[in-house]
Amino acid sequence: MRIDTICKALARLLMIVGVSMLLPAIWAVYFKEQDLWVYLFSAFATVGSGIILFRIVPGSDEVRPREGFAIVALGWLVASLFGSVPYLLTGTFDSFIDAFFETVSGFTTTGSTVLTDIEVVSRSTLVWRSLTQWLGGMGIVVLFVAILSQMGAGAVQMFKAESPGPVPEKIKPRIRETAKILWLTYLLISLAEMLLLWVAGMSLFDAMNHTFTTMATGGYSTRNASVGFYTSPWIQWIIIVFMFLAGANFALYYQCLRGKNLACFWRNEEFRLYLFLVLGATALTLFYVYGQVAGGFEAALRASAFQVVSMITTTGYATADFDKWPLLVKTLLVILMFVGGCAGSTGGAIKVGRVLVLLKQSVVELKRMVHPRAILPLLINQKPMPSDVVISILQFFFLYTGISSLGWLAMSAYGMDLVSGFTAVAATLGNVGPGLGTVGPAANFAHLPAGAKVILSVLMLVGRLEVYTVLVLLAPQTWRK
Amino acid sequence: MRIDTICKALARLLMIVGVSMLLPAIWAVYFKEQDLWVYLFSAFATVGSGIILFRIVPGSDEVRPREGFAIVALGWLVASLFGSVPYLLTGTFDSFIDAFFETVSGFTTTGSTVLTDIEVVSRSTLVWRSLTQWLGGMGIVVLFVAILSQMGAGAVQMFKAESPGPVPEKIKPRIRETAKILWLTYLLISLAEMLLLWVAGMSLFDAMNHTFTTMATGGYSTRNASVGFYTSPWIQWIIIVFMFLAGANFALYYQCLRGKNLACFWRNEEFRLYLFLVLGATALTLFYVYGQVAGGFEAALRASAFQVVSMITTTGYATADFDKWPLLVKTLLVILMFVGGCAGSTGGAIKVGRVLVLLKQSVVELKRMVHPRAILPLLINQKPMPSDVVISILQFFFLYTGISSLGWLAMSAYGMDLVSGFTAVAATLGNVGPGLGTVGPAANFAHLPAGAKVILSVLMLVGRLEVYTVLVLLAPQTWRK
Repeated sequence: MRIDTICKALARLLMIVGVSMLLPAIWAVYFKEQDLWVYLFSAFATVGSGIILFRIVPGSDEVRPREGFAIVALGWLVASLFGSVPYLLTGTFDSFIDAFFETVSGFTTTGSTVLTDIEVVSRSTLVWRSLTQWLGGMGIVVLFVAILSQMGAGAVQMFKAESPGPVPEKIKPRIRETAKILWLTYLLISLAEMLLLWVAGMSLFDAMNHTFTTMATGGYSTRNASVGFYTSPWIQWIIIVFMFLAGANFALYYQCLRGKNLACFWRNEEFRLYLFLVLGATALTLFYVYGQVAGGFEAALRASAFQVVSMITTTGYATADFDKWPLLVKTLLVILMFVGGCAGSTGGAIKVGRVLVLLKQSVVELKRMVHPRAILPLLINQKPMPSDVVISILQFFFLYTGISSLGWLAMSAYGMDLVSGFTAVAATLGNVGPGLGTVGPAANFAHLPAGAKVILSVLMLVGRLEVYTVLVLLAPQTWRK
Repeated sequence: MRIDTICKALARLLMIVGVSMLLPAIWAVYFKEQDLWVYLFSAFATVGSGIILFRIVPGSDEVRPREGFAIVALGWLVASLFGSVPYLLTGTFDSFIDAFFETVSGFTTTGSTVLTDIEVVSRSTLVWRSLTQWLGGMGIVVLFVAILSQMGAGAVQMFKAESPGPVPEKIKPRIRETAKILWLTYLLISLAEMLLLWVAGMSLFDAMNHTFTTMATGGYSTRNASVGFYTSPWIQWIIIVFMFLAGANFALYYQCLRGKNLACFWRNEEFRLYLFLVLGATALTLFYVYGQVAGGFEAALRASAFQVVSMITTTGYATADFDKWPLLVKTLLVILMFVGGCAGSTGGAIKVGRVLVLLKQSVVELKRMVHPRAILPLLINQKPMPSDVVISILQFFFLYTGISSLGWLAMSAYGMDLVSGFTAVAATLGNVGPGLGTVGPAANFAHLPAGAKVILSVLMLVGRLEVYTVLVLLAPQTWRK
C-alpha cells in the first residue's frame, strides 16, 4: 500500500468534484442567486486542493490492485467532506454533521434528508443536491476511470470495488472502454428522461433535478411533497418507467442494443426475476390499496406501481404517505428495501442478482440432500457459477443482515422505536431514503441525535460500496507493505 | 421412497407417544383428577393406533437414508396430531387448531401458548403440556433410535434430520449408542435440576414441570406469571444455570466428563462464543435496566441474566415483562432470538455454531480480497471445514431469514402490527415462545386468527427440524422411486 499513490488518485477525484460544482453556479447565474459566489468559491477551493495535493505528493499514477479499495473507500469519504462545504457556506445547514449527512446521502444515492423544508433552499443548492446523486449513481470513481488513462491494474479493482452487484460484467476487454460506455449510456437515458419530463409539463429546472435523482435511484426531490407534488399522471408514469430502467443492469442495455435484439433482456435471468418481483409486488399492493386511493383503477395502479418501483430500485420517491397504507403493504415495502435493483444498475441494497443466486442455491442444496453424491453446479444464465463466488454472495447476505442488526441496536440505543429504527437502517444501508414511523415518507431524519446521523452516514457508505470495500480497510493485511 | 416402511416407523413413534401419556395419568391419580380417564383413553387409543398400523402394513424395518427425512418430518406432524387429543378431550381447548398449536408449540419446545389462563387447567394436563416439551427437547426420533435396534442406514439420516446444528457430532461410532448417551445425559441433568428446585422450595409437581421445560428450553410454565411467580432468588438462579446448560452442546458434556477435563469446554470455540454472547448481552442489559428493577444490584443482575439466557437459549420464560424494558434491550433480545443455543443443545433458532462459521468466514472473505490467490481454509476447533458444509451453513442463514420475511408478510396480512408480527415469527420459527407487542411475555397467542395460528405452527416445525428436513419433502426428487 503506497500512501502517495492513493493521495494522487484522491487529488484527481477532488478536481472532478470541484469542476462539477460549476453546474449549480450556472443555475445561480440563471436565477440571479447570491449563492453563485459560494459555488464558485467551493469549486475553486476543491479543484485547488486537488491540484496542490497532486503537486506536492510524489509517486506514480499506476494503481496496484490492493490500493484500488483504499482509493474507492477514501475517495467517497473525501468527496463527501468537500461536497458538504457548499451546504455550510450557503447556510443551508448550521451543523457540519447535517451537511455531511446530506452529502453522503446524495453521493450514495440514498436520498434520506435532514432538510425540514426543501422549498426554501436556493435553487442552485437544490441542483448541487441532485447532482451529487447523479454523480454517485453511476459512480464517481467509474467516471474517473473513464476519463483518465494509465491507471494500471488497479483500475479493474477500483471499478469492481465501486460497481454494484456480485460480478460486474466486462463489456469491453479494456476497463476504461467499459467505464466510458456505461457513463455514455447513463447520460443518454438521462437526456431522454429530461426531455420527456419537460414535454410532460415540468419546468426545465425540475426536469433536470428529477432526472438526476431518478436515474441515480437517489430520490432527492425539489419539492416537500416529493413527486406527489406533480399530480400529472404522465409525469408519474414517466418517472415509474425511468426508475425501473435505472434499476436494471446498464451493461444489458449496451449488449441488447448492440445485438439489436430485445429478447436478450428476457434471456437474462436476473432481469426476469426483477420484472417478476416488480409486477408481483405491484399486483399485491394494488389489491390491498385499491379502496384507499381516490381516482379509480388507473390512480390506484399508478400509486402501487410507483411505490413498489421506488422501493425495489431504492429510489425512495413518494407520491403517497405509504406509512398510512395497510400493514401488509408496509411490510412488503420494507422487504423490497432489502432486495434492491439489479447488479450493474444504480440501485442499492442486496441486488436482485444476489437474491437469484441465493434462491437457486437453496434448490441445489435440497437436491444435494436427496442425492448426496451428485455433482450439482449452480447455473446462472446457463453458465456454472464457481463455488467461491457462491460463498462470497452468501457471505454478503450474512454481512448485510448482520450489519443491519447492529445498526438497529444502535438506533434503539438512541431511543428510536423498533419500527423507525429498523427501517432507518434498512433505508440508509440499502440507499433507499425514507423509512417508516419517525423517518417515514412524510417525515425526515433531521430530528435524530448527531451520533445516530453519523452512524447512518457510515451505513450509507457501507451499503453503496457493498460492504466488502469498506470492511477490507479494517483488515490489517490491507495496510501491510 | 417406500411408503410402507415410513408407516411402520410412524407406527412405532405412536407407541412411544402413547406410552408417555401415562405420566399425566399417574399425576391425575395423585391429584384425584377426573382427567385420569382422558389420559388413559388417549394412551390406549394412541398405542392402539400404532399397533394396528404396525400390523396391517407389510414391509421392512430397515430405513433407507432418503426415507429418514420423511419419517422425521411426518413423525413430528403425526405426534402433534395425536398429542393434541388430550387437550380436546379434557376441554382445555374447544378448537382443534388451538389444541394443535399448543401441542406443536410443546413438541417443538417453542412455548408460545394459546391458553389465556394457565392456572385453571387440570394438573395432569399441565404435566402433558410440559412433557411434550421434554420429549421434543432431545428429540422424539432420537429417543426412538435409542430404543430400537435394526434401523439400518436410515437411522443416521434420521438422527441428523432431527438434531439441531450443522454437523452433529458422533460420540460413538454406532448411532444407537450416541442416541442413548445423549438421552442419558439429558435425563441425569434433568434429575439434578428437579432435585435442586425441590430443595429450593418448589413443590415436586412444579419442580418436575419446570425441569421438563427448562431442560428442553421450552418455556411452558404452570403459572400465569411464568417463573416470575417464584420470587425466590435461589429458584431463579437455578433456572438460569440450567437454561444455560440446556443451551450448550450435550455431546460436549459427555466428552468433557469422560476425559475428566473441564478445560475441554473452553477449547470448544462454539461454547466460548456462547459464553461470550451471554455475558456480553447480560452486561449490556444490566447497564440499561439497572434503574428500572427494584431490589438492588443482585435483583437487576438476576433479571438481566434471566431474560438474556431465556432468549438466547430460546426457552422463553419470563420473570419480567421485558416489553416494557428500554428500547435497546428489546432490540437486543429480538436479535438474540435469532441466535439460539449451541449445536447439539435443546435450543432452537440459527445456533451459535452457525453464527461462528458465518463470522469466521467473513474474515476469510476479507483476507481473500487482499490476497486473491491465497488458500484460506476456515478453521473451527483447529479443523478445516469443507466448503460444501460452509455453503450449506450460509445457505441455511438465507433460508432462515427468507422464511422469516415471508412469515412476517403473512402476519401483516392477518393484521398484526409490524413489531408483533415480526417477533411472533422470530419467536415461533426460533422456538422461543413469547414475542413483543400483542404476543409479548404478558400476553399470549390466543387472539390470533386461525390462519395465523396454522402458519405459526408450521413455522415452529420448520424451525425445530432446521428448515431442510421439512423443505426436502417439497422436492419432487424425494418422492421418486
